[in-house]
Amino acid sequence: MVDIATRVYNHKWKIDPIVRSLIDTDFYKLLMCQSIFRNKPDTTVTFSLINRTKSIRLADLVDEGELREQLDHIRSLRLSRGESTFLRGNTFYGKRQMFRPDFMEWFEGLQLPPYHLEKRDGQYELTFEGRWPEVMMWEIPALAVLMELRSRAVLRSMGRFELQVLYARAMTRLWEKVERLRAVDGLRLADFGTRRRHSFMWQDWCVQALQEGLGGAFAGTSNCLIAMRREVEAIGTNAHELPMVYSALAPDDAALAQAPYQVLADWHEEHDGNLRIMLPDTYGTKGFLDRAPDWLAAWTGIRIDSGDPALGAETAIDWWTARGENPRDKLVIFSDGLDVEKIEELQRRFAGRVKVSFGWGTMLTNDFRGLVAGDGLAPFSLVCKAVAADGRPTVKLSDNPNKAMGPEAEIARYKRVFGVGEQQAQEVIV
Amino acid sequence: MVDIATRVYNHKWKIDPIVRSLIDTDFYKLLMCQSIFRNKPDTTVTFSLINRTKSIRLADLVDEGELREQLDHIRSLRLSRGESTFLRGNTFYGKRQMFRPDFMEWFEGLQLPPYHLEKRDGQYELTFEGRWPEVMMWEIPALAVLMELRSRAVLRSMGRFELQVLYARAMTRLWEKVERLRAVDGLRLADFGTRRRHSFMWQDWCVQALQEGLGGAFAGTSNCLIAMRREVEAIGTNAHELPMVYSALAPDDAALAQAPYQVLADWHEEHDGNLRIMLPDTYGTKGFLDRAPDWLAAWTGIRIDSGDPALGAETAIDWWTARGENPRDKLVIFSDGLDVEKIEELQRRFAGRVKVSFGWGTMLTNDFRGLVAGDGLAPFSLVCKAVAADGRPTVKLSDNPNKAMGPEAEIARYKRVFGVGEQQAQEVIV
Repeated sequence: MVDIATRVYNHKWKIDPIVRSLIDTDFYKLLMCQSIFRNKPDTTVTFSLINRTKSIRLADLVDEGELREQLDHIRSLRLSRGESTFLRGNTFYGKRQMFRPDFMEWFEGLQLPPYHLEKRDGQYELTFEGRWPEVMMWEIPALAVLMELRSRAVLRSMGRFELQVLYARAMTRLWEKVERLRAVDGLRLADFGTRRRHSFMWQDWCVQALQEGLGGAFAGTSNCLIAMRREVEAIGTNAHELPMVYSALAPDDAALAQAPYQVLADWHEEHDGNLRIMLPDTYGTKGFLDRAPDWLAAWTGIRIDSGDPALGAETAIDWWTARGENPRDKLVIFSDGLDVEKIEELQRRFAGRVKVSFGWGTMLTNDFRGLVAGDGLAPFSLVCKAVAADGRPTVKLSDNPNKAMGPEAEIARYKRVFGVGEQQAQEVIV
Repeated sequence: MVDIATRVYNHKWKIDPIVRSLIDTDFYKLLMCQSIFRNKPDTTVTFSLINRTKSIRLADLVDEGELREQLDHIRSLRLSRGESTFLRGNTFYGKRQMFRPDFMEWFEGLQLPPYHLEKRDGQYELTFEGRWPEVMMWEIPALAVLMELRSRAVLRSMGRFELQVLYARAMTRLWEKVERLRAVDGLRLADFGTRRRHSFMWQDWCVQALQEGLGGAFAGTSNCLIAMRREVEAIGTNAHELPMVYSALAPDDAALAQAPYQVLADWHEEHDGNLRIMLPDTYGTKGFLDRAPDWLAAWTGIRIDSGDPALGAETAIDWWTARGENPRDKLVIFSDGLDVEKIEELQRRFAGRVKVSFGWGTMLTNDFRGLVAGDGLAPFSLVCKAVAADGRPTVKLSDNPNKAMGPEAEIARYKRVFGVGEQQAQEVIV
């Protein structure tokens, strides 16, 4: 029987909104936002959307009017009472009241700031400027909107059963991955796929499939809304934007060299346990670890997000050993370019030597490769990054020169300051 | 939003009925029923369910109580007003009022007769006795109930997402077949999969997928209810039960030799055009054609339902040629053991030489091979046949000795009367 009221209610929507909640975002954005809200509330930043896959001409695929409607809808969102109750009352990483009352009050009043949108060379130039805690909340919804509008554009011409079979194929593919992962001894894996997801509904399906299929090996999801609805752990710690903005704000080279450690010193004050995970690759993992203060060696773990992941983990193991720490007590989280084979390989190599965990992104929530003609749903590399802070450009080097960002002169300066030598290039797919 | 009324209404069902309509049956059963209702209304027959795949112990898999509930539910069904209106008013095979008013009045009052159910050696012995027009209507619902109860038994222990992925896989598999069939030039194909379907909902899905996927190459479905709901052609002509019962009733060998032709003489009086399709294999195709009266050569076509289908079609082509008919004007319907490769092969071989059409059964509506552990959903060979008429046993030989049915002495007698020599055995899978 058709629920007539629901059908009629749905007719009233002017659009089919992609992002329907301010917490349909990565959990670590909220942790970082609270940290920024405390430590750098008045810093002005610019975030910019960058499509690294130039062959996909987003502005040709996605209608500008539709894009504006979706972005305008996000600006109409406010934190709901239930979402606020959840954030205030839920246990995150074993801790109650992770979010402080002053931050929650601010969040309850938050409206995302205006956006600037232009078309250039078949791409959208989408930027956000303003106070850091507000602007940074645009990152994930902006990516989710572009990813999903592109999916919708590609799917528009398909028939009803063709569509059902498309999703049947994607489900089958994911389940085959689940069945392989089930055989991985001691696996611990979380969904990190919000930013590159095919769609919200699809990510939600993937999370539920992992819940049923992996049981205890499924650690949770980075998506705060889905974590709330599906009652799984919200997962995530911190990201490159912190060292990037702190570094941009540094007045001289000496301050620049210390900036990434200042980020973690601020984090150290706020968090302990499994939230003390460092992300060392912003300006080269090797140099970062070599020059790190001793208190960092006592941190719980490390997230490997660029470069050859096995090499990164070996570097961390050597470093812990040199600093008198037992790597077996340490957590290594792999979160870059993962799919089943890579997960199996890394688990085989590092299980027993360190605690291993995986943050599985694009190939979890957006593996539609080869499922439509012309491979129109293949994932692509869309990012939304802080490009300036208080009028100064940001720089990211990472352990992969293909992921470097920023003005050329500044990249050279950062390489000098952080002592980054030759780097091995890795293809950036997603 | 949940439709509360629907949920509450569904709670009230004592069972989840498998067969919910008297026209959830093959269309040819209705055509044959009308013919029997006119020509042999008082013949008493026994139909019996036979599982030719002894390795599948149905009585161990399927609960007797559940089976009885489903069969009892079928006995509670009556032709609905809408179904009656459809049968009375719809055009079948280009003809209005295919069903005569006297037959429709009888059908509107029909309740299926009692059944007899016993367990033996891990199998169910399910038989139906009574007047032929009533008893013969049990065949398809009885098969559908057993097939679907077996599916349900196998699926009972599966999780929600595991189930969704199971159907995703089955959908993907069917769609891959559709994509291959789309490339077959001049294809004309109908769903003949009611009797061996995985479930009603699955058959309904398959029909809709073929509608969208094959477009004009999809000729329709043998399922009368689905034909009505999905507004596609209802397809089917006649089956072995007619010559089997006519032959059993024959008082002597001379009458027996004529019985199969008497069936078609009766049919000839009632039907023309694309309904004049002979089914020659009941007692051997070769002998049937050799001894056939001349008026049969003018019939529209032939259905090949056992033996090597290419050989059967060649035999028919030779026969038409010998009788001065142009095979290019004739229709050959293949309906036995089809899957995509076989369809491609037969189309390649016979397109242009005759008009070719396919009645695709089990591998359309029940191809779940390999999709669950232990292959518990693999199709199997369940039939429901007339085994006696007015107290005399029936016999079927077909073009495949593995499909022969009846008492041994009677099989020998029929072989003698119909001049059946050596036959090539073919494995019976479904």
